[in-house]
Amino acid sequence: MFQTGFNPKYRRPQRGEFSTSQCVEGILSGDRNALSYAITLTESQNATASQKAYEILKSLAQSGTQGYSKRITITGAPGAGKSTFIEHFGKYLLAKGHTLAVLAVDPSSQISYGSIMGDKTRMESLSTNQHAFIRPSSAGNMLGGVTLGTKESIFLCEKAGYEWIFVETVGVGQSESTSSAITDMTILLVQPGAGDDIQGIKRGILEMTDIIVVNKADGPQKDLADNTCRSYQSVLQLFQNRIEGYMPVVLTASAIENKGFDEIYNQIIHFFQHLEQKQMLGENRKEQEIRWFDFMIRERVLDWLVADSTVSQQLKGLKNEIADGHVLGFVALELAMKTIKNQGGR
Amino acid sequence: MFQTGFNPKYRRPQRGEFSTSQCVEGILSGDRNALSYAITLTESQNATASQKAYEILKSLAQSGTQGYSKRITITGAPGAGKSTFIEHFGKYLLAKGHTLAVLAVDPSSQISYGSIMGDKTRMESLSTNQHAFIRPSSAGNMLGGVTLGTKESIFLCEKAGYEWIFVETVGVGQSESTSSAITDMTILLVQPGAGDDIQGIKRGILEMTDIIVVNKADGPQKDLADNTCRSYQSVLQLFQNRIEGYMPVVLTASAIENKGFDEIYNQIIHFFQHLEQKQMLGENRKEQEIRWFDFMIRERVLDWLVADSTVSQQLKGLKNEIADGHVLGFVALELAMKTIKNQGGR
Repeated sequence: MFQTGFNPKYRRPQRGEFSTSQCVEGILSGDRNALSYAITLTESQNATASQKAYEILKSLAQSGTQGYSKRITITGAPGAGKSTFIEHFGKYLLAKGHTLAVLAVDPSSQISYGSIMGDKTRMESLSTNQHAFIRPSSAGNMLGGVTLGTKESIFLCEKAGYEWIFVETVGVGQSESTSSAITDMTILLVQPGAGDDIQGIKRGILEMTDIIVVNKADGPQKDLADNTCRSYQSVLQLFQNRIEGYMPVVLTASAIENKGFDEIYNQIIHFFQHLEQKQMLGENRKEQEIRWFDFMIRERVLDWLVADSTVSQQLKGLKNEIADGHVLGFVALELAMKTIKNQGGR
Repeated sequence: MFQTGFNPKYRRPQRGEFSTSQCVEGILSGDRNALSYAITLTESQNATASQKAYEILKSLAQSGTQGYSKRITITGAPGAGKSTFIEHFGKYLLAKGHTLAVLAVDPSSQISYGSIMGDKTRMESLSTNQHAFIRPSSAGNMLGGVTLGTKESIFLCEKAGYEWIFVETVGVGQSESTSSAITDMTILLVQPGAGDDIQGIKRGILEMTDIIVVNKADGPQKDLADNTCRSYQSVLQLFQNRIEGYMPVVLTASAIENKGFDEIYNQIIHFFQHLEQKQMLGENRKEQEIRWFDFMIRERVLDWLVADSTVSQQLKGLKNEIADGHVLGFVALELAMKTIKNQGGR
């Protein structure tokens, strides 16, 4: 099931020694070191690395058909058991003969796992499986709510032949909506609990959620999980999903007891079949590309202008003045535009 | 209660003849023609008009203290009875001695009322009252989900002495979240009805809603309205409001029978007292100014660059290529940035 183009001429270089063409060949051959190398480049803010990343991406875009993996956001508040769920459900997918890449952009994971415990500690049994690829993003790569490079990482994983791609993100702040904007589907993990326990969830997340999984439905929490399931069902019934004709569902699962996985798997398959039938999968992705382009062009243009220290210092100063109540936004805007027009282009 | 600075030297010019200083004086004296004139300028995309608008805004910002009106978004799906509610609840406020400005940015209103029936037809009895100011925005002023000039219009109405400001917007698309981002409070109007009737509401709206009003709770719909009220109450209980310590409420009302207004009025007063106690009103507004500045600086910089026809044509062409699936976003981005850097500054 691991469908990568086997290239008999391809010889794996030592880690960190990839030329652009070696990296492209490596990714198309399913070499995980080449894939890791390319992802590191896309996450980099160094100009030389960015240029190399761009050449690799462009070359891959021209080579072969684009993969149609299942791009799925896995979100939920801290403590919902996302890592454990991904590890166990991931192994379930591997046992079915699928391949899986996990991109973890959960900023809280960065602190508790990524930086302190190191990459390999998370989802240990998954990461040692040759059909799985686990990639935590390093902290400090967040840009205006978007993780620099995650969209490109999804593309790279598809080119490397991974059929399922999980983007793990924490359901606080902007991260979950940004992640939903670059994947096909969103699964929200919640813990069993009523009232107070549920309050940590932002209402906005529900809007983009296609499956809610009440996790940890095991042992003494089983009954509570069933109640939580019914609560969410009644909430979801009140609203329409963003996908025409699709009704989001609430399912219970126990990651540690491997329970509920068949139902979740079947629902995911049903969701993607529905998207395909409505011819929405490709359309949604094109829309995402355009929206992402629209967003990024503004970021990049401002980045470029802010590289000028006069503009940079003024913007910083104006924001402080706004925060102190000394200047209103529209006055600050006019002043900033005057400087930008004078300095612009350089 | 109409607290404007009376200026004995101020003589009202004929409509459309305001100089910058006349307009500033007029607004501070509560002259509605001066206010209308300034709003028209802020909505304009003409450079000369924009420059004059900027001078008026800047001059007003320097003159006197900023008013602390109640800035309230009134949203709801088409058919929820927003205009009727605003007209009747508005008259209730006037009877209490308050002053009210209504800025209607509802794009559907633009078609059915603004353009076809003319400004005065909406909320007729309100618009003839000297303590109320009704201003429908003309269509075609929407910019990236933001109505060009609405934030400035709120500021102008405050300077003209209006104590209550309603921003009426339809609860579809992006308009309601944009409007919530420039007001202190959001009231969602819904019709009585279960299941199917409620499905028109986007879940995202609930996140920013501080009061839900089940409108049209009259005649044969009274019981249904009470049921709808309970449904929304159970939904809201599941989540935390964005304002610490504030619990959003669901109330029933009949705009045509003037019922339920006392409860709504008291809840609004309670909400603002809560914001003041937590010292959040001023803080929220400063945060809004900074976020708006952050958003607008990107828009304005891109506008400025896109005024170059080479950049403009390329961006348009690239978006089409992305839509056709011929080019991926990150490739398009790199190409666009190359052109912008070559042309930028001019």
